[in-house]
Amino acid sequence: MTGAARFEILVPPPADGSTRGRLGRLHLPHGVVETPTFMPVGTNATVKALHPDEIEETGARIILANTYHLYLRPGHERIARLGGLHAFMSWPHPILTDSGGFQVVSLGDLNVIDDEGVTFRSHHDGSRHRFTAERSMEIQAALGADVAVAFDQPVPPASTGAGDLRIATERTHRWAVRSLKAHHHPDQALFGVIQGGLDSDLRRESTAFIAGLPFDGLNIGGLAGDETPAQREAAIEVVVFALGPDERVRYLMGLGSPADLLEAVHRGVDLFDSVLPARVARNGQLWIPGGHLNIRNERFRDDPAPVQEGCRCLLCRRFSRAYLAHLFRADELLAYRLATCHNLTFTLDFMAEIRFSLRSGTFAARLPELRAYADPSRSRASAVQSE
Amino acid sequence: MTGAARFEILVPPPADGSTRGRLGRLHLPHGVVETPTFMPVGTNATVKALHPDEIEETGARIILANTYHLYLRPGHERIARLGGLHAFMSWPHPILTDSGGFQVVSLGDLNVIDDEGVTFRSHHDGSRHRFTAERSMEIQAALGADVAVAFDQPVPPASTGAGDLRIATERTHRWAVRSLKAHHHPDQALFGVIQGGLDSDLRRESTAFIAGLPFDGLNIGGLAGDETPAQREAAIEVVVFALGPDERVRYLMGLGSPADLLEAVHRGVDLFDSVLPARVARNGQLWIPGGHLNIRNERFRDDPAPVQEGCRCLLCRRFSRAYLAHLFRADELLAYRLATCHNLTFTLDFMAEIRFSLRSGTFAARLPELRAYADPSRSRASAVQSE
Repeated sequence: MTGAARFEILVPPPADGSTRGRLGRLHLPHGVVETPTFMPVGTNATVKALHPDEIEETGARIILANTYHLYLRPGHERIARLGGLHAFMSWPHPILTDSGGFQVVSLGDLNVIDDEGVTFRSHHDGSRHRFTAERSMEIQAALGADVAVAFDQPVPPASTGAGDLRIATERTHRWAVRSLKAHHHPDQALFGVIQGGLDSDLRRESTAFIAGLPFDGLNIGGLAGDETPAQREAAIEVVVFALGPDERVRYLMGLGSPADLLEAVHRGVDLFDSVLPARVARNGQLWIPGGHLNIRNERFRDDPAPVQEGCRCLLCRRFSRAYLAHLFRADELLAYRLATCHNLTFTLDFMAEIRFSLRSGTFAARLPELRAYADPSRSRASAVQSE
Repeated sequence: MTGAARFEILVPPPADGSTRGRLGRLHLPHGVVETPTFMPVGTNATVKALHPDEIEETGARIILANTYHLYLRPGHERIARLGGLHAFMSWPHPILTDSGGFQVVSLGDLNVIDDEGVTFRSHHDGSRHRFTAERSMEIQAALGADVAVAFDQPVPPASTGAGDLRIATERTHRWAVRSLKAHHHPDQALFGVIQGGLDSDLRRESTAFIAGLPFDGLNIGGLAGDETPAQREAAIEVVVFALGPDERVRYLMGLGSPADLLEAVHRGVDLFDSVLPARVARNGQLWIPGGHLNIRNERFRDDPAPVQEGCRCLLCRRFSRAYLAHLFRADELLAYRLATCHNLTFTLDFMAEIRFSLRSGTFAARLPELRAYADPSRSRASAVQSE
């Protein structure tokens, strides 16, 4: 344990087994994060289209930034010289950086993975680079987020053969040990990544291995990919059961639709990130209770109502559906900002409602209502995490 | 006179003739506008990349919206149904709409101009449309801005032959009379447009004709085109001299660089608009006292200083040149917002400084200092008004 993070479980799952959902509080160098919660993604040290004050206004108190992207541009050393990520992007609250593992595999061209690390070409200019556990730790230390993540090798959970899955999982374990050894930043927590795909035995094995190491938090990796919701939920259950009384924070990487978040919280997960709410917003999909609307639909051009009655966001408290529909049709920059503010506010408010019900002990009883609110018909695909 | 506008001259030009600059106050249905001032352009009922609160924060208290663009999309009747432009875009302060004359000629495809009006094809879908003085008044009434502008036919001032210039100017005069006759909106002022290009006799003739009609304000049209600054300044002098003791507000359409605004104020102009500050901002040109910087320049990637020390804008009070340089290189939406806020704040603050010096009687004495601040080396071309 680095000592840079402290996780309190304020309300443990009820003894009746009606849910594994729990209320928590994660203390980090730049502030306190109430869990369960969702982290908006600031790929390039900016949550697309938002000013830091607007991120804060959505209710977010921790964001994720991408190690791979920031390493390539503007460069981790440059960010370090400029005072670290918080100062660079003027975000005073906690930040988590991912390991870069997902992006080097999914975005890096011509990547070659060996037991030592990953060699890849930049998707910007084709230049050649190499990430190892040690390099990922060095880059994340320079970025200076509150939380770093151990270098891992994710693979698509449903479409990866058993042999490759085992190789990637065992490699992730070795890299986890090396990441821990290479991590020296005193004010930065380090989370480890559990892999194992959809193979229950391998998931259990990976959970035991990673949880056996002194990480500050435990990531459930290799999901939010090409699996079905049922497969994902089964994998989460395997991990949470295997963790038993482990009291560290649990973070499922890449999950973003409220329906998916709800099911994962119910199964004992505390932390999430995804580009989904913001990305679909920029495409004109606005989330509302029990559904969503496509603002590019003709019928909204004359609709004077707000996107969501009573919503406190930058969009809803001031503008009509008709105005937003116009901005999208005119390809005006303000459209992307307003839509992003709405979907992130919707997501963060949903997480706040979940926390409220966990605190009051009504979460399990309210599950049907929360499920209806979250719009289960919404696309649950999370293959958008590769931003 | 419609009675919807009232212009007070608070400080007239000094008797010593050192300047024709004057301090004024324009009372409009949605508020008071201190002059001289600059109007940001909200082409599509949005000042590109800015929220209304941010427009307000730049110091702007009146904006311009484009009749041609809003007529085509989302449609003036739709805006009227939704409560008019102010409600539609949630801007509580004054708005001025242009006549549409400039855009139908410069953007409309295959336009045909006759004595009755202009037939043109939409630049969106090629659909056929026709603007006349009566139609322009009808559209502007539906949009419901504080100020409408009489339908006119602008021509490029330097490259138009004498015959065409006279035809366009005389047509503008007939359309001015028809615009006045067709204007029935009780809460909307109507400004007339003086044409005449760079021909002093024709300018004088046009000034006499338009000033002889009961408009609430007088636009100096057909400039900010392909003329030199010296030609433009000579044309302004002809108009202002011909106006003599006329006490109506004077508005030079399409001018945007601080250096150009300063020279026009010095010659007796009160009101301006242009897309220039915002457009160059979106291209990475940031205005600073006595110069400008191109934020895409390599040297800014490591520069921790704000774009302009002491500037109160959204960009400068929180972010570094290095961060803005990064956002531009990553093509991040926040870049365009921050840069636009800066250039508009720079322009509006410059106008506020001009007003301060007019109020204190030091404007003429401070001209050398104000000229140095305004960066006379900056591009004075205003051929960007065709947004």
